Amino acid sequence: MRTCLKSSACLSADYHSVQNIFITGAAGFIGSSLVDRLLAEGKSVVGWDNFSTGQERFIAEARQHANFKFILGDNLDLDALTAAMKGCDTVFHLAANADVRFGLNHPKKDLEQNTIATFNVLEAMRANGIKRIAFSSTGSVYGEATVIPTPEDAPFPIQTSLYATSKLAGEGLIHSYCEGYGFEAYVFRFVSILGERYTHGHVFDFYQQLTEHPDFLRVLGDGTQRKSYLYVQDCLSAMLHVINAGLALKAKHRVEVFNLGTDHYVQVNDSIGYICKALGLKPRLEYTGGERGWVGDNPFIFLETKKVRATGWKPELTIEQGIGRTLRWLQANQWVYEKRK
Amino acid sequence: MRTCLKSSACLSADYHSVQNIFITGAAGFIGSSLVDRLLAEGKSVVGWDNFSTGQERFIAEARQHANFKFILGDNLDLDALTAAMKGCDTVFHLAANADVRFGLNHPKKDLEQNTIATFNVLEAMRANGIKRIAFSSTGSVYGEATVIPTPEDAPFPIQTSLYATSKLAGEGLIHSYCEGYGFEAYVFRFVSILGERYTHGHVFDFYQQLTEHPDFLRVLGDGTQRKSYLYVQDCLSAMLHVINAGLALKAKHRVEVFNLGTDHYVQVNDSIGYICKALGLKPRLEYTGGERGWVGDNPFIFLETKKVRATGWKPELTIEQGIGRTLRWLQANQWVYEKRK
Repeated sequence: MRTCLKSSACLSADYHSVQNIFITGAAGFIGSSLVDRLLAEGKSVVGWDNFSTGQERFIAEARQHANFKFILGDNLDLDALTAAMKGCDTVFHLAANADVRFGLNHPKKDLEQNTIATFNVLEAMRANGIKRIAFSSTGSVYGEATVIPTPEDAPFPIQTSLYATSKLAGEGLIHSYCEGYGFEAYVFRFVSILGERYTHGHVFDFYQQLTEHPDFLRVLGDGTQRKSYLYVQDCLSAMLHVINAGLALKAKHRVEVFNLGTDHYVQVNDSIGYICKALGLKPRLEYTGGERGWVGDNPFIFLETKKVRATGWKPELTIEQGIGRTLRWLQANQWVYEKRK
Repeated sequence: MRTCLKSSACLSADYHSVQNIFITGAAGFIGSSLVDRLLAEGKSVVGWDNFSTGQERFIAEARQHANFKFILGDNLDLDALTAAMKGCDTVFHLAANADVRFGLNHPKKDLEQNTIATFNVLEAMRANGIKRIAFSSTGSVYGEATVIPTPEDAPFPIQTSLYATSKLAGEGLIHSYCEGYGFEAYVFRFVSILGERYTHGHVFDFYQQLTEHPDFLRVLGDGTQRKSYLYVQDCLSAMLHVINAGLALKAKHRVEVFNLGTDHYVQVNDSIGYICKALGLKPRLEYTGGERGWVGDNPFIFLETKKVRATGWKPELTIEQGIGRTLRWLQANQWVYEKRK
């Protein structure tokens, strides 16, 4: 382990205590990107994944690294999870069922893989004496927000999806563990994240369609849905920035909640424009109609990010740039479509 | 079944569709009181309870009624729950682990008995085509509220107890079932409820202590905690009033959330005064100290109840009167202390 050099890199007394890091969902889109970032920073990382949506190829390079250990396992197996976490000081809990759109087809999935899984992560931490956790929550917890851009202390919302409900339950469990067991928590409410290793979402679907039939694109809803996106490396920078600063230690309940997003949003139609321009295509557009893409879809998601910006972080890429990087990666990695079939 | 007489009792087209009612926690404090109220109104009631805290004596009279059927069962047994609910049109989901104070001793209890149990209730309803649900949530979901009196749309709070977290998860599941499956839901965020059949809480504890040692009372915290209470029959009147009016059917997401409480609060010290006056005692008071009675205790709970009052309901009893009724019932029913040992 490195010792603290009292340099400007030492953002807080706690910085170097984030050294042995456990990541759930380590083979996933965001998780595997975090693995690589942390290894590059000289941290030791234990990756945990059940490969339900994670990809072996995403951690192939990390597996060559001396400071990385991968353990195959499922968050519903509390005993194995507890054993795997031994010796770590910080947990990034990123594993989740992120299939928002089809939640109603299998309502138990969000409960098990998000709510109960988060409970197990917290219990495994408690058994190991690990108290620092970072959690990937979602801007969907605001439901159909009445205040836009939506701040962290928006009016108490009505939940509109099983996914957001299960994430909010996870947040509450984490808050309670801070209050009751002295945990230190960083809860991040993400907009949609995109970038390299992105394996589901509208860019994924649109690119797939345009590969199969370049002259035609089917769009869920009426195309006017307004959404916000964040590039994965900007997302990771934000998380690492606030954790390294130990901000939760100064918070009343030892928990800090941050919205993560850009300071702008785009319409689905804008996004289609960026994608078609990048691909040099002019497909005929067919809309399924209605202001929502599916039951529980939120026609306008735009998070207020003043709180995280006030800590000194800001994103490097615009939404259009993020979509561009995502497309280039999908073009170079078409194998992900085979894997998802 | 009665037919609608188009009288003033017909508050809405839906009124008489609330006819065959399933109650979870039917042998509990609030549940058994509701059973009696509904039977008196001519409804048919199926009671469901696992007797974990419910009492056989609370439903002894109801059991003599032709319109009441009791089924012994646990909410974690989804198959039995689904079978039990058959033929009902409305569910009052009142069963819960309500042991807020000791939640940290057994964190899994709230998850199982509140969150997972609520999921099972919803799944059993879905299997039976039942869409109307009333749910007993809690003012604790506001955490340590920054706005007092706290309205239903208070700023999005940090959760401070496993109990409130599990209830909020239950709320979210219910909201999602309204959005996704067309359910109609009434969510009630209670202050502490007291009255006949009350079997846990500060009046219960104080009366027990004063029975054992009339000259001495041990008080958790410093006695300045400010709390709000509601008499059980007022609580039931509020729930039945808004459900009979079918208010959720007019709501954007087919769910209405109501705070239930009185328009005043008392300090723990005030409550001690009422209790001692009623019992004719002047005990020596010993405070454990601190502004909280226990970890996660909220030093000030006072809910804004304008929303439910605007529907035409108001409570009949003050907090002092409610405490008086509670005490008289405890004096006449000391067997509940034996049962709780």
